[in-house]
Amino acid sequence: MPTVPAKRDTYTPDSLLTVAVRVFNERGYDGTSMEHLSKAAGISKSSIYHHVRGKEELLRRAISRALDGLFGILDEPAAVDGPAIDRLEHVARRTTEVLMSELPYVTLLLRVRGNTDTERWAMARRRDFDQRVTALLRQAAAEGDLRTDVDPRLATRLLFGMINSLVEWYRPDRGGRTPGPDPEVADAVVRTAFAGLRT
Amino acid sequence: MPTVPAKRDTYTPDSLLTVAVRVFNERGYDGTSMEHLSKAAGISKSSIYHHVRGKEELLRRAISRALDGLFGILDEPAAVDGPAIDRLEHVARRTTEVLMSELPYVTLLLRVRGNTDTERWAMARRRDFDQRVTALLRQAAAEGDLRTDVDPRLATRLLFGMINSLVEWYRPDRGGRTPGPDPEVADAVVRTAFAGLRT
Repeated sequence: MPTVPAKRDTYTPDSLLTVAVRVFNERGYDGTSMEHLSKAAGISKSSIYHHVRGKEELLRRAISRALDGLFGILDEPAAVDGPAIDRLEHVARRTTEVLMSELPYVTLLLRVRGNTDTERWAMARRRDFDQRVTALLRQAAAEGDLRTDVDPRLATRLLFGMINSLVEWYRPDRGGRTPGPDPEVADAVVRTAFAGLRT
Repeated sequence: MPTVPAKRDTYTPDSLLTVAVRVFNERGYDGTSMEHLSKAAGISKSSIYHHVRGKEELLRRAISRALDGLFGILDEPAAVDGPAIDRLEHVARRTTEVLMSELPYVTLLLRVRGNTDTERWAMARRRDFDQRVTALLRQAAAEGDLRTDVDPRLATRLLFGMINSLVEWYRPDRGGRTPGPDPEVADAVVRTAFAGLRT
């Protein structure tokens, strides 16, 4: 079998992860082989095995990075103190920001479908996050600040449907954006979801 | 090569399409071969070729069904007459309903990525639809009924992000739903997007 053209392995765990996540998002995790990763990184498979045990470890690291970003939000002071409606708005805004700043990692998280232990763990953690937000919605409704004619679980799905859609259309390098999360997008999410489009 | 176990071909174009769309959504259009379709339908490949020229024709028919449903909304009286904000609300509600009633077809439409002429055509038609809705948003803003601090293109993306997320989580056979579009979901979309979650 032909080997990959020699390239000195100068990868760090982080830079190898960047390549792997790009390939996972392009081909799908299931559709990615170690051969694909080796070609994309330009180093041999044995060099990759020097860094990680296999592609599932790369997936776990990538997903962990997305989850750390998302769960970190729930521990921020503005997500912990104050009326539930304000904490919810903060979580919505910050989730949108984390999605933009960690776009490839969150994209991967949102696309996993549960064929391996790591994928099932990722899906369980996503459900945990959603349930924490649903609990906030229930509390905001109990405090009288959230409309009560939309079921909290349904509202959570619609809110995240709106936010998560960014992985389909948000491109940080398009339209002369400055690097980092676009504050206009986070504002638009919060205004639309909490105040509505109608004047 | 082993042939598929004999089954009398009792398919109509519509019932064959139902099978094909299910397989396309499970495996992805690119990942589906005529062999996969033949196995799923339980009839030989040559029987399938008796109905259609190939898998791209099945894709085109499926996508057409989704697009006919969506574009049909724009010609409904409530989408044509009256203040733009009310027409927009009607379009949002009806798009949600069509998505629920034509779930597998719209799911396929939303997932195509543009490797064939049919896929590129589907993506162009989706953009047409989005632009028609963006034009409605601009008009509603000009009429003073839509908030002006959210860019109309961004608002269109967030609105459809919310609606289109249904393909990820809406399951018509779950939770004892009655057949057909769930009016609670369409109400929730309209309330959230136009009036906002905050009281």
